[in-house]
Amino acid sequence: MNPASPLSPAMVHVPEADLTQLVRRALAHMGLSDAHGQAVAKVIVAGQRDACQSHGVYRLLSCADAVRAGKVQLQAEPVVAANGGPIVWVDAKYGFSPLAFESGLPALVEATRRHGLGALVIRHCFHFSALWPEIEAITAHGLAALALTPSHAWVAPAGGSTPLFGTNPIAFGWPRPGPYPYVFDFATSAIARGDLELHRRAGQPLPEGCGVDADGQPSTDPAAVARGAMLAFGGHKGSALSTMVELMAGALIGDWTSRESQAFDDGAGVTPCHGELILAFDPLKFSDGDAAAQTARAEDLLNAVSAQARLPSQRRFAARERSQTDGIAVPAALYQDILQLAG
Amino acid sequence: MNPASPLSPAMVHVPEADLTQLVRRALAHMGLSDAHGQAVAKVIVAGQRDACQSHGVYRLLSCADAVRAGKVQLQAEPVVAANGGPIVWVDAKYGFSPLAFESGLPALVEATRRHGLGALVIRHCFHFSALWPEIEAITAHGLAALALTPSHAWVAPAGGSTPLFGTNPIAFGWPRPGPYPYVFDFATSAIARGDLELHRRAGQPLPEGCGVDADGQPSTDPAAVARGAMLAFGGHKGSALSTMVELMAGALIGDWTSRESQAFDDGAGVTPCHGELILAFDPLKFSDGDAAAQTARAEDLLNAVSAQARLPSQRRFAARERSQTDGIAVPAALYQDILQLAG
Repeated sequence: MNPASPLSPAMVHVPEADLTQLVRRALAHMGLSDAHGQAVAKVIVAGQRDACQSHGVYRLLSCADAVRAGKVQLQAEPVVAANGGPIVWVDAKYGFSPLAFESGLPALVEATRRHGLGALVIRHCFHFSALWPEIEAITAHGLAALALTPSHAWVAPAGGSTPLFGTNPIAFGWPRPGPYPYVFDFATSAIARGDLELHRRAGQPLPEGCGVDADGQPSTDPAAVARGAMLAFGGHKGSALSTMVELMAGALIGDWTSRESQAFDDGAGVTPCHGELILAFDPLKFSDGDAAAQTARAEDLLNAVSAQARLPSQRRFAARERSQTDGIAVPAALYQDILQLAG
Repeated sequence: MNPASPLSPAMVHVPEADLTQLVRRALAHMGLSDAHGQAVAKVIVAGQRDACQSHGVYRLLSCADAVRAGKVQLQAEPVVAANGGPIVWVDAKYGFSPLAFESGLPALVEATRRHGLGALVIRHCFHFSALWPEIEAITAHGLAALALTPSHAWVAPAGGSTPLFGTNPIAFGWPRPGPYPYVFDFATSAIARGDLELHRRAGQPLPEGCGVDADGQPSTDPAAVARGAMLAFGGHKGSALSTMVELMAGALIGDWTSRESQAFDDGAGVTPCHGELILAFDPLKFSDGDAAAQTARAEDLLNAVSAQARLPSQRRFAARERSQTDGIAVPAALYQDILQLAG
């Protein structure tokens, strides 16, 4: 998530509607159904709008790779199963994840409003988006949310050197008055997989503590770490959280762990195929019903944080405001690539 | 959690039943009701049995401090509210937390079995135990569990220097075949509050990254950090998790944040008074019902971790086995203190 300067000469500025149209055209050209194209375009354009370069229109390239590998079902119609209880299941039928999430969201919101807490279980989806668009879609309904998903086995447990966990993101959101919720979304790996790749291409050393080489020795050489293993953030604590993600968004929901997803990928090197677990919470149902006091307590806390430090997503929201004023900044070279993809 | 050597000459070895009796006598002597004495003794003895010195019988001293400060209701009878939905509430009535947890556990297990997921909301309790005894009590029913609780405002957000968050532990458990579940229970602060205290008394510097002095400068001087602020583990990621704990186990459930708990403490320096949020998950309800496949997938993962690294709680479980064979090791001087407390 490196914010792009809107003043950079290497940037073009595109109105959101135009960029969305272009991305949808590129996705249609790849063979995605209209429904998938709309859902994927929404998260990709949201990423670019928020200056999350790694989850913006750049992802069209990984999307194209995944399509070429031939495993993603481009026309899959997700099947939602809800039984009136707090758990909602979506079978993504091996399609991309955004449509599966969109399909399950109304039932998740309804279940959470009814029971106070709800869970959305997405199975058999190809995942390449960040989790924060999903979190923000839930907080927009006045609900809190926690999302977990595995990825591919790139990360060794603390103390070990054999890759086992994915970068296993954890994302959380809490609704706030005004347009922006409290949201964080981070990999439990010390560095994102995409960042490792960027360091490797640029020939730059990694920060300390991001990985080990094939002999299990700490290394800052991105190529050596790619052959060895990445490490979790925060030592054994991050490693424990990553284990939790595998158990909860893998074993619990009856879908693949990061190792299994990677075995299915079988060297194709495309985006992981697995499941996702999203929990949602209705603040009003949990507390004693005094909404004003509840909001005031949360705002007191968050204002006390932002009085001394940046809140997570704050840079993203600032970029969003710039995009609304100036159009969405896209690196000019990347924009040309997308025009090509759109045929 | 420093494992005590059972061979240390400064240790006495006490059978579990005898130690429980002694701890209950000490608690009765402080004025706790039988029900509270039984529940508190259970977690304190479990801590000692597992060689968690910081959460073992040593906690009787903090317990005595809390009782002397006069705010804890020693005879409080927790009130459980369940409405057939997935959320169970317990009002601890300003008593110690273990009895509140025990009171709510059967309803939580029932709600979770019925709905697939459940939540136990404990409000208005004085908390001094670790979270893993609660997690293990839930995994014993074949359920997974996640627990969060604030504490006192000792930790500054990443990038700041004013204490705001508690040490805010996160604990998680997953049921395994055999006697021991997968369990972790860690503070989101870089170091436990008790460890800071131990370093201060011993005049030993803290590891790097644990805190800042009153001017916000990184410091390894425990006295300076006690006047300044502790830091979260893992930088901005740990800080975000700590924020989540305040929001979920504070604002969401309608109970105090760590700052409010500290304001209520008003310099007495006793154990925090606040709430706790525990989520529970029935693996069978979440997945497609193939229990054997689900267990095999989780076991494959956990065995692949333990093939190369220690699992969290592994040392604790080893100590538990030693305690079962040799009796529970208690530092001899501490044992004398407890005999005094027992009157």
